[in-house]
Amino acid sequence: MNTLQKNQKFRAALGQGKLLTAMAAHNPLCAKLAEEAGFDAIWGSGFELSASHAVPDANILSMGAHLEMMRAIAAVVSVPLIADIDTGFGNAVNVSYIVPQYEAAGASAVVMEDKTFPKDTSLRSDGRQELVRIEEFQGKVQAAAAARTDKNLLVIARTEALIAGQGQDEAIKRALAYEEAGADAILIHSKQKTPDEVLAFINAWRGKVPLVLVPTAYPQLTEADIAALQKVGIVIYGNHAIRAAVGAMRDVFARIRREGGIAEVDKRLPSVKDIIALQGDAHMREVEANFLR
Amino acid sequence: MNTLQKNQKFRAALGQGKLLTAMAAHNPLCAKLAEEAGFDAIWGSGFELSASHAVPDANILSMGAHLEMMRAIAAVVSVPLIADIDTGFGNAVNVSYIVPQYEAAGASAVVMEDKTFPKDTSLRSDGRQELVRIEEFQGKVQAAAAARTDKNLLVIARTEALIAGQGQDEAIKRALAYEEAGADAILIHSKQKTPDEVLAFINAWRGKVPLVLVPTAYPQLTEADIAALQKVGIVIYGNHAIRAAVGAMRDVFARIRREGGIAEVDKRLPSVKDIIALQGDAHMREVEANFLR
Amino acid sequence: MNTLQKNQKFRAALGQGKLLTAMAAHNPLCAKLAEEAGFDAIWGSGFELSASHAVPDANILSMGAHLEMMRAIAAVVSVPLIADIDTGFGNAVNVSYIVPQYEAAGASAVVMEDKTFPKDTSLRSDGRQELVRIEEFQGKVQAAAAARTDKNLLVIARTEALIAGQGQDEAIKRALAYEEAGADAILIHSKQKTPDEVLAFINAWRGKVPLVLVPTAYPQLTEADIAALQKVGIVIYGNHAIRAAVGAMRDVFARIRREGGIAEVDKRLPSVKDIIALQGDAHMREVEANFLR
Amino acid sequence: MNTLQKNQKFRAALGQGKLLTAMAAHNPLCAKLAEEAGFDAIWGSGFELSASHAVPDANILSMGAHLEMMRAIAAVVSVPLIADIDTGFGNAVNVSYIVPQYEAAGASAVVMEDKTFPKDTSLRSDGRQELVRIEEFQGKVQAAAAARTDKNLLVIARTEALIAGQGQDEAIKRALAYEEAGADAILIHSKQKTPDEVLAFINAWRGKVPLVLVPTAYPQLTEADIAALQKVGIVIYGNHAIRAAVGAMRDVFARIRREGGIAEVDKRLPSVKDIIALQGDAHMREVEANFLR
Repeated sequence: MNTLQKNQKFRAALGQGKLLTAMAAHNPLCAKLAEEAGFDAIWGSGFELSASHAVPDANILSMGAHLEMMRAIAAVVSVPLIADIDTGFGNAVNVSYIVPQYEAAGASAVVMEDKTFPKDTSLRSDGRQELVRIEEFQGKVQAAAAARTDKNLLVIARTEALIAGQGQDEAIKRALAYEEAGADAILIHSKQKTPDEVLAFINAWRGKVPLVLVPTAYPQLTEADIAALQKVGIVIYGNHAIRAAVGAMRDVFARIRREGGIAEVDKRLPSVKDIIALQGDAHMREVEANFLR
Repeated sequence: MNTLQKNQKFRAALGQGKLLTAMAAHNPLCAKLAEEAGFDAIWGSGFELSASHAVPDANILSMGAHLEMMRAIAAVVSVPLIADIDTGFGNAVNVSYIVPQYEAAGASAVVMEDKTFPKDTSLRSDGRQELVRIEEFQGKVQAAAAARTDKNLLVIARTEALIAGQGQDEAIKRALAYEEAGADAILIHSKQKTPDEVLAFINAWRGKVPLVLVPTAYPQLTEADIAALQKVGIVIYGNHAIRAAVGAMRDVFARIRREGGIAEVDKRLPSVKDIIALQGDAHMREVEANFLR
Repeated sequence: MNTLQKNQKFRAALGQGKLLTAMAAHNPLCAKLAEEAGFDAIWGSGFELSASHAVPDANILSMGAHLEMMRAIAAVVSVPLIADIDTGFGNAVNVSYIVPQYEAAGASAVVMEDKTFPKDTSLRSDGRQELVRIEEFQGKVQAAAAARTDKNLLVIARTEALIAGQGQDEAIKRALAYEEAGADAILIHSKQKTPDEVLAFINAWRGKVPLVLVPTAYPQLTEADIAALQKVGIVIYGNHAIRAAVGAMRDVFARIRREGGIAEVDKRLPSVKDIIALQGDAHMREVEANFLR
Repeated sequence: MNTLQKNQKFRAALGQGKLLTAMAAHNPLCAKLAEEAGFDAIWGSGFELSASHAVPDANILSMGAHLEMMRAIAAVVSVPLIADIDTGFGNAVNVSYIVPQYEAAGASAVVMEDKTFPKDTSLRSDGRQELVRIEEFQGKVQAAAAARTDKNLLVIARTEALIAGQGQDEAIKRALAYEEAGADAILIHSKQKTPDEVLAFINAWRGKVPLVLVPTAYPQLTEADIAALQKVGIVIYGNHAIRAAVGAMRDVFARIRREGGIAEVDKRLPSVKDIIALQGDAHMREVEANFLR
């Protein structure tokens, strides 16, 4: 299945009312594991990539670094990749130049948020959370939609109105304006510790395009709950890969230092053979058998 | 402490007879966790980086990708970085051009192995394991040593003679030849499931430079055992970070799919706040407080 | 016109017996000027890129650097891009992993040569010129052909048999073997100062696929001469862009130093406005007008 | 001479009252030619790099692309490199993270301008030219100065007040404020077609740090004129390399198309041998002789 077919299939799936699940990835291996686990899509997360580089999620990493990672992820998974392009790395002009690059990198969707550049992570309670004007962001959504060469590439507009404390009316107003500008879906983000705020938004939503949720702050909301709402197209798990990796590496590193060796941890870890299989060893050996002389 | 001081200190530490420990890293966050756990150095592993990209450890990734990762790792840790430069990405000329780039990227040591390019991973039992001629590799070691601008950068020669099944005499002969060519240490690699082969080599070693071990295949050998041998300067744990990460991500991903949500896994994972702290949030907030107006 | 259409059109054009012309480019601007001048294709030259980085054309630059440049060139021209992938950056396995990356970067053809890695430039009279075994290179050609996702991507095999001083029989033998392995065209390279050697090869050629020439060493051979031979599909001018740029920059730099200012040179150079137009300013202003609010 | 020594020498030279000359470069070869011609420094121009990629100078290229080019340039020249970091690619936080990267890449100075991100090129008469608040830019200058690890790295503040049409009083006010914040020099930019505006500024300048000029718009001002003013430390020629290259490539390309071959142009261009020498062939052959066995 090539990219065009993947994009077409993803757009079609989003329109069928079934809830799709996406898992964050900070590298291609992680994306591959997510695909193997059964997630429907990969979230090419700026937060996870920044975290894996041990720098804040505040446009510290160059756009080029993120784009390169998207390319590497798309090369090893079959499921669609949803690229997190933050605020679009500038204004509508930047968006116009960037979207075709993400498309060529293999993304089937881009998510762009309505904050100012450089962004601060939405996950901090006391971060800088400034929104751009509605008209400005509509222009960015239109620029993204116009710049794609495959009309099936999804442009998902993310509003941070709730994150910025501007309330539900503003969030709804923005979401509708972005839909009007051509957004294929609306990601509504909230950092409240219960799903109430997001549920209220969903309840009030009268737009036609599906919604996208990232329930980091309100993990109690299950996929069954979300599916029942009938308005959400995708649920994104935004940081569980990196959190899992950190927990395990920290634990294993501490044990090795404590035990003065790897004898014990070795037994509990996936084998080297297992990792080699994940690296696509079987495919490489086939290439060797066919073409190496 | 700048790079020059770090290099000087690392070279001095290697000469003091104390066993140093190095943990593999496939990204800067992983390196930071290794430093926090108390490892003395970071192993900038080609295997781990390839694995994190889900491609074989066989020079599939471009040298530039590895170099870029070294740069990103060196930017966030204080402990020395030992860069795995595989076979030197070509001949002695390539080595001569590459070593200054690794040095500028922040590496305090480079490890170069005596296999042909493109290499196959040493970790496969049936992989391609061809060695270059001794004289050729001596030239590469000399080229590396001559190309560094800081004479404290360590050039570590890795012989794959045991991996290639050429026996201890060949391994000793090569190791001595590489020392003669200017190697600051010798990495002796074995894939036997007991440490016997490596212990025999160490016992037979009459060179002056310290040895380096990577006990992936024989995890039962402890740091205390190794230190008692008095001839080993560094023990490298070559793949435990990626294996830990894979195990945990696979488990967490499976649970989320099985449970249809993140409610349960969320409680068991490091918090988002924890990750944000690892990203250097405190430093960024200080920069904001001082300079953002 | 998307990449698939471009590839199809290029393959079709090559089969029509008309001589196509390709100009070397070391950056996207240079490619754009070549397109404007009327060349049919761009030669994504490793020699020119190396030269623009002031390093030898001997696999000193990372494959990633070349790939990135191909991507940047393909983004700004409409004519097809012929990527110079040297020896394939390794063995048949590397080729298998690399070809899809060049395809995704926008190349419509790849040219791979039958020398060992790391290569030395064919342009030096006393360089290292070692060929790989015929069977080995056939495997690489097959690997390239099998790895492309668009069957219209051209795989062009370049034999350096004449460059390596192995004579016409060897060159013909290799060319036929590569055609048999699936090469879509054969690039026959010669460094003799007259076209005699190449003309003898062309005369002796009984293969079905078209030939490709790079008349750097024998500039006296005109396009009309080549077209009359009826067997050559593409003529590549391999280094005239960088040579033109070097001559002009050297001259202008010397004048500025000699004259102690830019008053005189300024009058003779293309205007800044002219450069801005080449940067696609009109397109950017259109994007601004449409989407910047 | 290592980077630390180069930085120290450059800072010292700037303080001696002698006018230094810098030539723009869009690739390492161009930088090498500028050094050979006798320029005192290289201007790592964002405009030239953007132009060489055929995209507008409006933060379309990723910061990473520019940084990588700085690294490649610094690797092949001995004279200091002045990196054009535009507006700092974001706010003071971005500056804080970016400056050490430019320093590690080999820059001896960074020039940062007081426009908003994304910038528009100063060379367009009708471009977007918005300035950030004075306090905000002071914070960015301070962040840059605090972030360097080598205190000899020069932080040069560039005010676009005249470009933005805000007049001399504003320009002087900003320049003094930036000096107060720690700028080591002030780049004063003007797009008027005579030097009057800049001369008036220089005349009114009472600050202690030297000024930097980029006389693109007023080429009639000679180095002798500038030196006589006694207040200018560096004159930067900002776009003559790319303009020279474009003029020559366009001319050569047109001739080849017109003449149907390279016979004539070949005689007028620098020889391939000449280019190979610029690529550092002699050094490579020395490395081969010493280390290739």
